[in-house]
Amino acid sequence: MADLRQQALDYHELPVPGKTAVCLTKPAETSMDLALAYSPGVAEPVREIAANPENAYRYTGKGNTVAVISNGTAILGLGNLGPLASKPVMEGKALLFKHFANIDATDIEVKHRTSEEFINTVEAIADTFGGINLEDIKAPECFEIEKALIERCNVPVFHDDQHGTAIVTAAGMINALEIQGKSIEEAVFVCMGAGAAAIACMTMIVKCGAQRENIYMLDRKGVIHTRREDINEYKALFANNTDKRTLQDVIKGADAFLGLSGPDVLGAEDVALMAEKPVIFACSNPDPEIRPEIAHETRKDLIMGTGRSDYPNQVNNVLCFPFIFRGALDVRASKINDEMKIAAVHAIASLAKEAVPASVLAAYPDVSSLEFGADYVIPKPMDPRLLPNVAKAVALAAIESGVANITTLPVGYMES
Amino acid sequence: MADLRQQALDYHELPVPGKTAVCLTKPAETSMDLALAYSPGVAEPVREIAANPENAYRYTGKGNTVAVISNGTAILGLGNLGPLASKPVMEGKALLFKHFANIDATDIEVKHRTSEEFINTVEAIADTFGGINLEDIKAPECFEIEKALIERCNVPVFHDDQHGTAIVTAAGMINALEIQGKSIEEAVFVCMGAGAAAIACMTMIVKCGAQRENIYMLDRKGVIHTRREDINEYKALFANNTDKRTLQDVIKGADAFLGLSGPDVLGAEDVALMAEKPVIFACSNPDPEIRPEIAHETRKDLIMGTGRSDYPNQVNNVLCFPFIFRGALDVRASKINDEMKIAAVHAIASLAKEAVPASVLAAYPDVSSLEFGADYVIPKPMDPRLLPNVAKAVALAAIESGVANITTLPVGYMES
Repeated sequence: MADLRQQALDYHELPVPGKTAVCLTKPAETSMDLALAYSPGVAEPVREIAANPENAYRYTGKGNTVAVISNGTAILGLGNLGPLASKPVMEGKALLFKHFANIDATDIEVKHRTSEEFINTVEAIADTFGGINLEDIKAPECFEIEKALIERCNVPVFHDDQHGTAIVTAAGMINALEIQGKSIEEAVFVCMGAGAAAIACMTMIVKCGAQRENIYMLDRKGVIHTRREDINEYKALFANNTDKRTLQDVIKGADAFLGLSGPDVLGAEDVALMAEKPVIFACSNPDPEIRPEIAHETRKDLIMGTGRSDYPNQVNNVLCFPFIFRGALDVRASKINDEMKIAAVHAIASLAKEAVPASVLAAYPDVSSLEFGADYVIPKPMDPRLLPNVAKAVALAAIESGVANITTLPVGYMES
Repeated sequence: MADLRQQALDYHELPVPGKTAVCLTKPAETSMDLALAYSPGVAEPVREIAANPENAYRYTGKGNTVAVISNGTAILGLGNLGPLASKPVMEGKALLFKHFANIDATDIEVKHRTSEEFINTVEAIADTFGGINLEDIKAPECFEIEKALIERCNVPVFHDDQHGTAIVTAAGMINALEIQGKSIEEAVFVCMGAGAAAIACMTMIVKCGAQRENIYMLDRKGVIHTRREDINEYKALFANNTDKRTLQDVIKGADAFLGLSGPDVLGAEDVALMAEKPVIFACSNPDPEIRPEIAHETRKDLIMGTGRSDYPNQVNNVLCFPFIFRGALDVRASKINDEMKIAAVHAIASLAKEAVPASVLAAYPDVSSLEFGADYVIPKPMDPRLLPNVAKAVALAAIESGVANITTLPVGYMES
């Protein structure tokens, strides 16, 4: 890792600090160019927008812009290091938005004093952008922050740590359960971790068919059950009316384990207790809840995913966020609703079942095959079909659910 | 103008809406690239910045970034049209920052409810950027807003409508008075208009040597004098202890007229009353306080400037703001102080006295000569020497006045 450390620092520092810049999409060479771009010509689009705010989409970059906003209270797995320290992550997100979906993203790091102040700040600047991607905001504040901003903003607000993770996890889980011959409606789930991502993932898995009473969520104190009085309202949604109290109590016979907690909390002896043909998504990064080698040694009938790129079935938000925003922006959706999220789940899940183009295999020289099965339940980030498939599914869902301001997709949309 | 109107709208709309985009400065092609740019590599610069905030300048784009921020309360000469309508102007500013000084500027439009809320919003996001350029904020709120933000932010805050205008106006005025054989210390000034730009211009002209008692400022009600009780504290700085009440009273014998008010408020009969060899800067845009043709017809001994590019001596903020920020960013100045502003005035004024390269003349095919004199007291926007000359003067002034965090300019700084 020492080598990766220096490589990462060099990557960020050289030849210029950071990862993105501004470039011009219009000429600025002659006096006439400048007269159109600025004074006096710029008065014309100003007047048009003053007359009708929708014209901002016609004459400015608003419609292709996403603000990536954090307060730095939960940076990666590193904790509350403050807004400035989150800047490389937010700039990284901007790089991914551009690379994968040609979206012009701007990072904004906000000083966090109170949630109300954070909400006021983001609301005050939100109209600048076509959408807001919240990032690395700690739970439980992230829930009230996202809720308030969705209510107060005219543009889509999406907390990627919750919903991006949830969409990709649900897509992978649906495929893994299908391969294992299990129905999501009957499967028993153990979710280790009860933070923002865990709650969002299990909420999405419920929306995809899982039964709440089949879900056991655990926080640091053990199983979240209906007699606990030390849980917030968000965890309470997953309080199970059960006498089971420990991981060992609930893992026995469980069909699926989702880890969004920390390294090495799941033992081989726990895995041995799971039902036949289990599914384990151990997403703690970089060190998963159980090492894939140990899990596979214990259970030959296992399907396993992690958050890491060096094992099969990586749960990676980049499979979702660039494309869900692409679809939302392209139809000027006022929000990213459940219909759009579920459309993204199914678009991602379906893509894993399609034959992979040679170019995708070539991008992964260490992988011998990408055929739908135990080692390939989730598409790869470099798959160029993600953009058209996910964006189109999301855009159509926005139109059908009535949150789109453009209600007809352009002819040939997302067909290259 | 109908033609320019459609050209300006087309320029903003086609082939893509807006004028700027995000581009990547680092590779994002391979899995390894993404591992460095985002997870897991991005954790390394995060840790470095958490350990020492100065590392943000090393590993992120902060040091080359300026936020162009408005609340849309005074857009160009069009008035209070709201934040969204100001977006084309702010994006235009971003285009100019990039084109002229390679600064990556982001526009942010802020909902304005109260000045305090606006200040809180900008302060909360300020650390994202290397500097803050405020724009199109109405007076008198702009004064308290800028003052508060300068106090509360760790990065330079600069209200261009005030100080950019003031710096370029002062540079031109100094040169014009010199050519007319007048000393700035003795010259009598009439300033028509008492808004943010007018007050900033006269403040700068005072800092460059003019005497306050030689200045007559007028608002809609006439001369601002010491017995008026209807003036705010900013206008009060220019209240003259005089019995003169009207433009006609004060223009008689005046050496210089500065117009920052509105079209056609200065008549030929007023110009006739001015002292020998007068200077008129009629900066109302697009229609000046007096048309140059009329003024020149009245006074053959006149030097005249306007805000327009189609007459000689255009007072254009673009001569200043890209370069004052370039210098400030390059030495990580904590503010843009008077020393830096005055250094910019003299750098711009001096440049007009130097022989113009053929490339600059070629950029202005309608101009036969750019030789220091009545028709050329201010450099042209397309002059490539503005960047090195102004930025270096500003950077050195920041170092000498003790507001720079980098106290030695790199060898060969701004030498190509």
